[in-house]
Amino acid sequence: MATGTFDIIHPGHGYYLQESKNLGGKDVKLVVVVARDTTVRSRKRVPVVDENQRLEVVKMIKPVDEAYLGSITDMFKVVEKIHPDIITIGPDQNFDLEELRKELSKRNLKAEVVKITGYKRSPLDSSCKIIRKIKETEFKEDALKHC
Amino acid sequence: MATGTFDIIHPGHGYYLQESKNLGGKDVKLVVVVARDTTVRSRKRVPVVDENQRLEVVKMIKPVDEAYLGSITDMFKVVEKIHPDIITIGPDQNFDLEELRKELSKRNLKAEVVKITGYKRSPLDSSCKIIRKIKETEFKEDALKHC
Repeated sequence: MATGTFDIIHPGHGYYLQESKNLGGKDVKLVVVVARDTTVRSRKRVPVVDENQRLEVVKMIKPVDEAYLGSITDMFKVVEKIHPDIITIGPDQNFDLEELRKELSKRNLKAEVVKITGYKRSPLDSSCKIIRKIKETEFKEDALKHC
Repeated sequence: MATGTFDIIHPGHGYYLQESKNLGGKDVKLVVVVARDTTVRSRKRVPVVDENQRLEVVKMIKPVDEAYLGSITDMFKVVEKIHPDIITIGPDQNFDLEELRKELSKRNLKAEVVKITGYKRSPLDSSCKIIRKIKETEFKEDALKHC
């Protein structure tokens, strides 16, 4: 199980998802949990793309077998439903791994927690960098008119 | 063979690529040609994401078997190299189909040209709309600082 916001897709997302999938054995199934708009807003920033569209795009990415929206109230609800063998944390996600493991064990959930290290470097390798690039780019006046 | 800019990925891209692939028979192979930065700049607008990153992201999308950058000077060069059975034109691409067919025939290229109709509707179903949304969104001052 992998998780994230997936606001604007970049190669780092593909890397994280493929590395997550590689941890599974034969008959591996990669399930992705996409963060809800309210969660993104409170933990990070206003999401550009809404949760349903982010979910749809995640489903288009090669290693993804299934994808769901997370719960608004309790991030462990979806873990209790999916019962993953492994939960992966993205290279740029700042979860406290020990806290997460403790909480899982408290709820009697046996998932292993693995931090994906390494990163796929690109000029715009985070949604945040893409947003900033757009904010800084001057488009010609009519370039964004007809859409 | 499908073509496009694929600047910022949205569900419409997945729809276009899947519909393109569906036109092929058994052993179908979907090859995508990604427009060069110079071509995008002269035909459309400044691309946000550079051609290499756009190519990488296109390769992450499920129906895509192979993807290449187009030629800077002659859009038919890649057709001569790949020899596709079918070339698909996206629902939002404003190619003159008859002109394209004439030019292919002049060069003795036997590809069928098919316009993909229909569209996958989403709130932000074009790169242009995503860019405009970002331009219009006010992010908190430190939201874009640490990336």
